[in-house]
Amino acid sequence: MNSQPIGIFDSGVGGLTVAKGILEALPKESIVYIGDTARVPYGTRGIEIITQFATELVQFLLKHNVKILVAACNTISATCLDKLQENSPVPVIGVIKPAVLEASKTTRNKKVGVIGTRAIVNSKIYEKEIAKLDSEIEVLSQVCPLFVPIAEEGMGNNGIAKLAASQYLDVFNEINIDTLILGCTHYPLLREVIQEVVGIDVTLVDSAHPTARDLKAFLEENNLLNAVGDVTKQFFVTDAPERVREVADVFLGCHVVPALEKVTL
Amino acid sequence: MNSQPIGIFDSGVGGLTVAKGILEALPKESIVYIGDTARVPYGTRGIEIITQFATELVQFLLKHNVKILVAACNTISATCLDKLQENSPVPVIGVIKPAVLEASKTTRNKKVGVIGTRAIVNSKIYEKEIAKLDSEIEVLSQVCPLFVPIAEEGMGNNGIAKLAASQYLDVFNEINIDTLILGCTHYPLLREVIQEVVGIDVTLVDSAHPTARDLKAFLEENNLLNAVGDVTKQFFVTDAPERVREVADVFLGCHVVPALEKVTL
Repeated sequence: MNSQPIGIFDSGVGGLTVAKGILEALPKESIVYIGDTARVPYGTRGIEIITQFATELVQFLLKHNVKILVAACNTISATCLDKLQENSPVPVIGVIKPAVLEASKTTRNKKVGVIGTRAIVNSKIYEKEIAKLDSEIEVLSQVCPLFVPIAEEGMGNNGIAKLAASQYLDVFNEINIDTLILGCTHYPLLREVIQEVVGIDVTLVDSAHPTARDLKAFLEENNLLNAVGDVTKQFFVTDAPERVREVADVFLGCHVVPALEKVTL
Repeated sequence: MNSQPIGIFDSGVGGLTVAKGILEALPKESIVYIGDTARVPYGTRGIEIITQFATELVQFLLKHNVKILVAACNTISATCLDKLQENSPVPVIGVIKPAVLEASKTTRNKKVGVIGTRAIVNSKIYEKEIAKLDSEIEVLSQVCPLFVPIAEEGMGNNGIAKLAASQYLDVFNEINIDTLILGCTHYPLLREVIQEVVGIDVTLVDSAHPTARDLKAFLEENNLLNAVGDVTKQFFVTDAPERVREVADVFLGCHVVPALEKVTL
């Protein structure tokens, strides 16, 4: 048993949707979250710089004595998870493999859609990971660049979100997918409009729930769950805490950020 | 007379709308453009960092032997133009004062609207500059955060742009403005939908045309116009040239970027 916190890191606030999933699945665990809002977005940067930034986030969390790390960011998970795992004294879990495993179990007609940022879709990471599990699954990817700013503006249920979803997701009607991976941690904020556009027969797979489930299973198997009642939730960002405070409730759902501190890495 | 190029710098691609205005007003001038796409956006950063980044852009252009510099970025113009002017051996022109002067001449009912990014609107720079020229002018500002990503996606004429414009600009109907300053270099890409929403009686003032006119007047007065026929256009960015190439035509209008090079500052 281990009462040390779970460390969660992201390029910005999107990872808060993963933090929300973890808080729901593991309400007795303490967490420390850091979002690198000063240097967001990572998706447009080169691999070396992303690795450097992510390493700095990991080092910050290790100083907070975490027992496990969650890379709550698709870009970090896609580009440098192996490097982080090699150099970390505690386990590091990403968000891509849990979502891919979930989607491969969910699909019945073996036609899976993936939506993500330009960087994630161009990397073809989901195609590669899905092919490792089941080479018969057909994957269609689509970039949805406006979804992130729409989510960050708290407009995920606005008519603008609906219109953008109609334009981006129309392509999936052609190949009749039955499963759609939300390949960006911001996208759960547009869940309802996405579901409305692709239809209720399509199962949406986000990163938060499969990652939280894998994390819970790992902690259970390794006897790392927190047995002490005392739970803390700490949130750090590298810039604009006042702006983050405005949007954090939307990303975290019913969980309000109790303390949010600006730090320099 | 002087055949050296005009240097134009911006945090990204938005300044290309200013470059377009300059190329139209001064077709016989050579230009060198640099957009700091690796570190965009500047608007969310602190003044010291913005000053440092802008200084690096200026130094890059000075190495290209420019005769005058144009800060084609509202954030740079609002935060550190004085500092850049102090330290530059050649004149430095910003985009805010030319637009403010134009708006103060245009308005008849002395009710002017300003739209911009969160950083620009919060800085109240337009209110301050307008008050210096005419303290009777009433100014109403409105943030339009989705306009930049919409412009960068080349969706300035899309239904999404129209819907966002309706939501953001509705506030101006209340005070009956007759002039609206487009306080961000990206916004000319949404010019038509903005005009449609605020009505044809409202004059739109962008940064590009007043800045180009002021630049032309300055070059004429100081006998710095290019008398040689040989004109060159050079474009540099600090990241993602392939993506910039995709959107550059939209920002530059009919002018295609002939050469676009990635550089490290």
